[in-house]
Amino acid sequence: MRVGILGGGQLGRMLALEGIPLGHRFSFLEPAPDPPAGALGQVIAQPYDDPGGLGRLAAASDAVSFEFENVPAASARWLAARVPVHPRPKALEVAQDRLAEKTMFRELGIGTPAFHPIDGPADLEPALAATGLPAVIKTRRFGYDGKGQEVARTEAAAAAAVERLGSGLIAEAFVDFDRELSVLAAAGSDGDRVFYPLTENRHQDGILRVSHAPAPGLTGPIQAAGEEIATRILDCLGYLGVLAVELFQCGNALLANEIAPRVHNSGHWTLDGADASQFENHIRAVTAFPLAVPRVPGPAAMINLIGAAPDPATLASIPGARLHLYGKAPRPGRKLGHVNVTGADREAVMRGVEAVTALAGKCE
Amino acid sequence: MRVGILGGGQLGRMLALEGIPLGHRFSFLEPAPDPPAGALGQVIAQPYDDPGGLGRLAAASDAVSFEFENVPAASARWLAARVPVHPRPKALEVAQDRLAEKTMFRELGIGTPAFHPIDGPADLEPALAATGLPAVIKTRRFGYDGKGQEVARTEAAAAAAVERLGSGLIAEAFVDFDRELSVLAAAGSDGDRVFYPLTENRHQDGILRVSHAPAPGLTGPIQAAGEEIATRILDCLGYLGVLAVELFQCGNALLANEIAPRVHNSGHWTLDGADASQFENHIRAVTAFPLAVPRVPGPAAMINLIGAAPDPATLASIPGARLHLYGKAPRPGRKLGHVNVTGADREAVMRGVEAVTALAGKCE
Repeated sequence: MRVGILGGGQLGRMLALEGIPLGHRFSFLEPAPDPPAGALGQVIAQPYDDPGGLGRLAAASDAVSFEFENVPAASARWLAARVPVHPRPKALEVAQDRLAEKTMFRELGIGTPAFHPIDGPADLEPALAATGLPAVIKTRRFGYDGKGQEVARTEAAAAAAVERLGSGLIAEAFVDFDRELSVLAAAGSDGDRVFYPLTENRHQDGILRVSHAPAPGLTGPIQAAGEEIATRILDCLGYLGVLAVELFQCGNALLANEIAPRVHNSGHWTLDGADASQFENHIRAVTAFPLAVPRVPGPAAMINLIGAAPDPATLASIPGARLHLYGKAPRPGRKLGHVNVTGADREAVMRGVEAVTALAGKCE
Repeated sequence: MRVGILGGGQLGRMLALEGIPLGHRFSFLEPAPDPPAGALGQVIAQPYDDPGGLGRLAAASDAVSFEFENVPAASARWLAARVPVHPRPKALEVAQDRLAEKTMFRELGIGTPAFHPIDGPADLEPALAATGLPAVIKTRRFGYDGKGQEVARTEAAAAAAVERLGSGLIAEAFVDFDRELSVLAAAGSDGDRVFYPLTENRHQDGILRVSHAPAPGLTGPIQAAGEEIATRILDCLGYLGVLAVELFQCGNALLANEIAPRVHNSGHWTLDGADASQFENHIRAVTAFPLAVPRVPGPAAMINLIGAAPDPATLASIPGARLHLYGKAPRPGRKLGHVNVTGADREAVMRGVEAVTALAGKCE
């Protein structure tokens, strides 16, 4: 089948690397020059909302998906009228608006931090009454990697944050969580569902640095709770493909923070730590193949390479380390690749993580 | 790095799929239209001996390798004067001539079936004196998948075979082996060597159908004997990259049958049955990365899809089956893809092999 992808970044690259062995061919709508997915298919070098580019993508595709959630939902809807698009554009719309996202969680009975919209100064008082202090003031749309959000510890700080961030905001209760987890689920065209073990994610400066899978100390009830959250969202959105839900763990409770309607950085370990990766299962779902039930034989970890990558040959010499570079030029804060580490036990994996982190840390 | 490959078939495709995550980019010299590797890099659509095409490949490459052994050795030599080429063209020359290959085995003290060159009718008597009957009469060059060879059970049949096959022949003793094995070895630029577990290969009509890895019942001494054979050849040829040696097992003895100076069909299981595949290690060697010591957590099998491929979605529904299609149009006898099967134990793998074989058998 011919698969079209909105976006041509590293997620598109890895979708194609995993989808080509299934016999598929790929096209990407991507305006940036020399994109990471460029080596793996036809690139239509037009903006994501360019009618000509969208038309060419539709003509070149039997099925369409997207690789990041800030693609215009209108583009996805335009395509969906012409060719099957999964996940549905509705999922994109929900993920693009933190208020819609949190409202969906509440309507589905999924625990989430207290929240309240802020459309102007008059909303500040009821918002803080809902969330308490500290509160996190966020833009509703187009925030990522910790951008467009501030933690306010006083009413005055909250007012100042609202002034800085503008309108279209949301206030959320600040959650003193134990750790951040994510659940990766895939929904197939035959109604099938598969889940990966919950992953523990460690951020720094708002950017994911390291993921551990399965999350250390993961219990059956927590895994089941994560799968239940994902299932409700998949059902609600009539979803096909991979969905990631970012979660806060507080004791034995999980709170949903946000969704990513796509393959997700916290699932990159599945390329080496599972026999079927999130990328393969996403493409299987989008192209109406049956899902692969992933086997996870042992522990795995993923370390992002950010800003500047260490010498690849040196990284590749670390036992159990598998390199995944995206073909991008170095730039501060930019995700250039990741390294997966697998091993016989968690200690072996941790030794690999430390070796990779030591090299990667020198380069940032 | 920029990697150039002589040939753009399925081996080139899989080399690129495994080499792109290491940060490399690929070019292929391949005259056939729409080649399997075409989606994964630049294709220079010229014959393998076209000076202009070779010049473009050299200019586009920091390192060059080849993906099948019938590439003209002269082309590899021409390139090697301009850019590092591995394995060395010498390996190609040896592999292209069964007499040179068998002579190398003998000189290295590697057991091999008795053999004798046949350049004309006068050679038949001394040849059969060396090999006995039955004898296998083969063309020295450009035989593959059982083509260009005949088993002769009488002197008259041998004479007739020589008449049919022409000149430039070799007679080999017919070996009543227990089974066919192969050893896959990789030699790295720092003198490092890694080995995969010996694989058992089952042929039909001269074409590999199914491989099982590790070979069922594989013992330590047989693995060591296979590694010793490969090591002598790697040393002799000053080799970098993956080498496959096809072996006959007779009791506790191994006889070398032939070498493939490249990634090999009997190593395709390593894409899913090992944490580092033959393709990744070949590219690591050719680009001066350290080799990855492969971990093989359990049994694996590989089934070739020949002639016509079953419905990919049906194949993909078999538990533990991983699909690897080459993007080729169906044609009788053509390798269109393969399926790897992994599982917790050999029984689970065998169930998968049977399910795949049942589907694939219907299509041939």
